[in-house]
Amino acid sequence: MLLTALREEVWQANLELVRRGLAIFTFGNASGISREDGLVAIKPSGVPYETMRPEDLVVTTLDGRVVEGDLRPSSDLATHLVLYRAFGAIGGVVHTHARYSTAWAQAGREIPCLGTTHADTFYGPVPVTPPLEAAQIEGAYEENTGLAIVECFRGLDPTEMQAALVAGHGPFCWGKSAADAAHNAVLLEEVARMAWLALALNPGAPPISSALLNKHFRRKHGPGATYGQK
Amino acid sequence: MLLTALREEVWQANLELVRRGLAIFTFGNASGISREDGLVAIKPSGVPYETMRPEDLVVTTLDGRVVEGDLRPSSDLATHLVLYRAFGAIGGVVHTHARYSTAWAQAGREIPCLGTTHADTFYGPVPVTPPLEAAQIEGAYEENTGLAIVECFRGLDPTEMQAALVAGHGPFCWGKSAADAAHNAVLLEEVARMAWLALALNPGAPPISSALLNKHFRRKHGPGATYGQK
Amino acid sequence: MLLTALREEVWQANLELVRRGLAIFTFGNASGISREDGLVAIKPSGVPYETMRPEDLVVTTLDGRVVEGDLRPSSDLATHLVLYRAFGAIGGVVHTHARYSTAWAQAGREIPCLGTTHADTFYGPVPVTPPLEAAQIEGAYEENTGLAIVECFRGLDPTEMQAALVAGHGPFCWGKSAADAAHNAVLLEEVARMAWLALALNPGAPPISSALLNKHFRRKHGPGATYGQK
Amino acid sequence: MLLTALREEVWQANLELVRRGLAIFTFGNASGISREDGLVAIKPSGVPYETMRPEDLVVTTLDGRVVEGDLRPSSDLATHLVLYRAFGAIGGVVHTHARYSTAWAQAGREIPCLGTTHADTFYGPVPVTPPLEAAQIEGAYEENTGLAIVECFRGLDPTEMQAALVAGHGPFCWGKSAADAAHNAVLLEEVARMAWLALALNPGAPPISSALLNKHFRRKHGPGATYGQK
Repeated sequence: MLLTALREEVWQANLELVRRGLAIFTFGNASGISREDGLVAIKPSGVPYETMRPEDLVVTTLDGRVVEGDLRPSSDLATHLVLYRAFGAIGGVVHTHARYSTAWAQAGREIPCLGTTHADTFYGPVPVTPPLEAAQIEGAYEENTGLAIVECFRGLDPTEMQAALVAGHGPFCWGKSAADAAHNAVLLEEVARMAWLALALNPGAPPISSALLNKHFRRKHGPGATYGQK
Repeated sequence: MLLTALREEVWQANLELVRRGLAIFTFGNASGISREDGLVAIKPSGVPYETMRPEDLVVTTLDGRVVEGDLRPSSDLATHLVLYRAFGAIGGVVHTHARYSTAWAQAGREIPCLGTTHADTFYGPVPVTPPLEAAQIEGAYEENTGLAIVECFRGLDPTEMQAALVAGHGPFCWGKSAADAAHNAVLLEEVARMAWLALALNPGAPPISSALLNKHFRRKHGPGATYGQK
Repeated sequence: MLLTALREEVWQANLELVRRGLAIFTFGNASGISREDGLVAIKPSGVPYETMRPEDLVVTTLDGRVVEGDLRPSSDLATHLVLYRAFGAIGGVVHTHARYSTAWAQAGREIPCLGTTHADTFYGPVPVTPPLEAAQIEGAYEENTGLAIVECFRGLDPTEMQAALVAGHGPFCWGKSAADAAHNAVLLEEVARMAWLALALNPGAPPISSALLNKHFRRKHGPGATYGQK
Repeated sequence: MLLTALREEVWQANLELVRRGLAIFTFGNASGISREDGLVAIKPSGVPYETMRPEDLVVTTLDGRVVEGDLRPSSDLATHLVLYRAFGAIGGVVHTHARYSTAWAQAGREIPCLGTTHADTFYGPVPVTPPLEAAQIEGAYEENTGLAIVECFRGLDPTEMQAALVAGHGPFCWGKSAADAAHNAVLLEEVARMAWLALALNPGAPPISSALLNKHFRRKHGPGATYGQK
C-alpha cells in the first residue's frame, strides 16, 4: 500500500475533527500530500468516522486521478487539489462545517482579529470569499470553490493565513501537514467563537492594533519566534 | 411479539435522541411504521429512556387502535399518525424539544437556508406552522397538530423537506425509517443552531442561491447523487 | 440518625444538580422536609459535592434550630424555611446559580411562556421578584429573600408555578419532594435557555395562547392529566 | 529539586484549567510563588498539558532569572512577575484564554456585577485595561502587560478583586495560591458567561446594589464571613 505513514497521519487528522467537536456524522474531510510523490491521501466520501480505517483513504494524483483505493474520494477533493496546486508550501487541507466558523461563512463576514488568541495563529482577519455565481456552481463546482479561495488570497500569504471561509458554505484550513491543518481548524473555530461572543458585547469592537498583531504572530511564527521549546 | 425488527429500530431511534443531546428526561418520541402491516410502533408515554426496552413500545393501527403493548402510547401518537397517513412515502417520525429547533418554533420563524450544511439535507427553508387556533387546541389537539403540518406542506414534497416546526411547540421530523427520522432530527438541530449563530452576526444574511441549494441537495439526494459510496 | 430516607433523597437531589450541570464547586443547595416531623434536611454550607455524604446533611426545625448535624447548614437555609412555612404543600426546595435561569434573574425579567416545553411544567411566566431594598438586605437577608418570593406569589398557586427568580440572584424551585424540586430546577434551566434563544431570533415573540398553555399543563398536571403511565 | 510541593500545586493548577474547559492545546498558564524563597514556579512555554510533569515547571527568581528547569518558562512569565512584585499578598497567578472572559477582554468592557454569583467572589466590576500603546507592545511587552494591570488597580484592593482583563487579550487571575488563582479563573469564566447572557436579555441591566454586593462578598470574605465550615 502506498504512503502508509501519510495515510496514518491523514486518518488521525480526520479523527481529530470528531474528537474536537468539529464534525458529526460524515461531515468534514482532511487530506495530506506527499510533495515528493505528487500524491494526495483524502477521506473517502460519506464514510462514518467510527469505522473508517487508514486503508480506506483514497490516494490520487494532483489532477484527481485515483491511484489507490476502492472507495470514492471526498466530494470536496477538487477543492483540496486546487489549494495544493496554488499553495505550494502546504502539506494538508481540512474542511469542516464547525458551528462558529460556518456561522461566519453563512453570515458572509470575515472574522476580524479582535484579540491575541486570533493573532497567535492567524495573521489578520480570516477572509471570506464572495458568494459563487450560478455559472461557477453549475460548472466545476468543487474546483471553482478552490479557485474562489485562491482568488481571494491575492496579496495574502497562505503560510501566514492558513484558513478561508467560503461564503454560504464553511471553512477550509491548511497547514504544513494534515495534522497541522486540523490543528488550525480547531483554532479557527475557537477564535470564530470568541469573536462571535465579543461582537455581541460590543458590535463596534475594533481589531487589535497592528503592533499587537505583529507581536503575537511573530512570537509564534517565523525566524524571531520565541514561544515554545526550540 | 409483533414486529420485533421494527421495535428494535424504533427503540434505537428513541435512544439516539438522548445520545445526541436532543432529549432530556422523557422529552421527545420516535416511531416507525410497517407499511405492509399498516402498523406503527411508538414510544410509550412518559417512560424514561434509561429503562425503556423494545418490548415497551406500543403497536397501533394507523387509526390509533393499540394492537400490542401494556403501556399508553406517546401523547403525540395522533400527530405521528396524521403524518403517516398524509405522507405515504415516509417510514419514521421523530418529535423533539431540541433547543435550537424549538427556539425557532417558539420564535415562530421558518429556518432560512443560509448555507450548504442546510442544503445538504433540507431542500429550502424549514417551514413553521401558524399558531393553532383555540378551537384546534381544545378539540383533537394532537391530530390537529399533524393537520397543521400537512396544511403547511401544500406545494412542498415531504421527501425533500423532512422536517417542520410547529409554532410555539417544536420540530417534527421524518424519513425513510425511524433511524432516518432521528438522523434528520439531529441535522435539523445542527442547521437550526448554525442559522441562529449566523443571524446574530448578520440579521440580514440572505439565503444561499437556488443554484447552490440545488447543487448541494442534488449531490446527496435523488438519481444524480454523487455523495457517499454507492 | 434521624430521617435516613429523607437524608438519602436530599443528598441525591443535591448530587443531581451537579450531574445536570446546574452547579459547580459548592454552588446551589437542596433540602427536603418531613411534614410529619416538622424537620428539614439541608445541604451543609460550602461542602464540596464530591465528598458530601447523606450524614453530612443538617437537620433543623422549621424555625431553623439545628437538631442533628455537626456542620453549619447552607447559608440559604432561612430562605428554604420561609418557603416551607408559606407553601404548605411542598416537600422540597432547590436553589441554584444555573446559567440561563440566573441570567434571567440578573436581567430582572420574568421568563415568558413561549412554548409547550415551558407549559408542560410551569403554568405561565416564571415570576421574578423586585430587587431587595437595602433594609431587606442588611436585615435578615436570607429570610427576606424568601419573603420576597412569597410576596410575589400573591395570586399564584405554588403547586402550579414551582419556581421563582430572585432579581440579581438566581432561581429557587420547589416540588412535592427534594427530587421533584431538583427535577423542576433542571426543567427551569431548559426553558430559560429555550426562551433566551427564541427571543434572540424574535425579541417580540408572543407568549403561547392560554388555550395552548392550559392544554399542555393539564395534560401533565391535575385530575385530567393523560401524560405518562397511571 | 527545589520546591517540590509548590511544583505539585502549580502543576495541578495548570491541569485544572484543562479539566474546567478553560484551556485547549497549550493555551493558558499558572504559576505559584514561595514568598520565603522569593522563587516562582511556572508552566514551561508551549508544552502540552497531557505530557507536562511537575518537574517540567520552571523555577525563577522574582526578576526572572531561571534557577531550575531545562525548559523555557511561559512567554507570559514577565507579566506574572510584575503581579507578584506589585501585589505582595498573592501566592498564585493564572492566565487563560477562556471563551467568555476573553470575549469581554476583546470587547474592551469591564464585567459589571449583575448578580450575587459575581459578588460572592469579585468585589465589584472586573476591570479591563486600556489597549496597550504601540510603544508598550514593541518594548518589554509582557512586563508592560503586567504594569497595565497594576496601573488599572490604583484604588482597588487586589485581595478583593482577584482578576483583571487585558484589553484585546484575556484574563489574568490571582489568589492566595496557584490553586486559588485557578479557582478564581473558573469563577471569572462563570460570571463572565452569566453577565454575557443577562445583557443579551436586558442590555441596560443595572449592577446590583452596593448593599447586596457587600452582603454577598462579606458572607464569604473577611472577618465577618459566615459561609462554609470554619
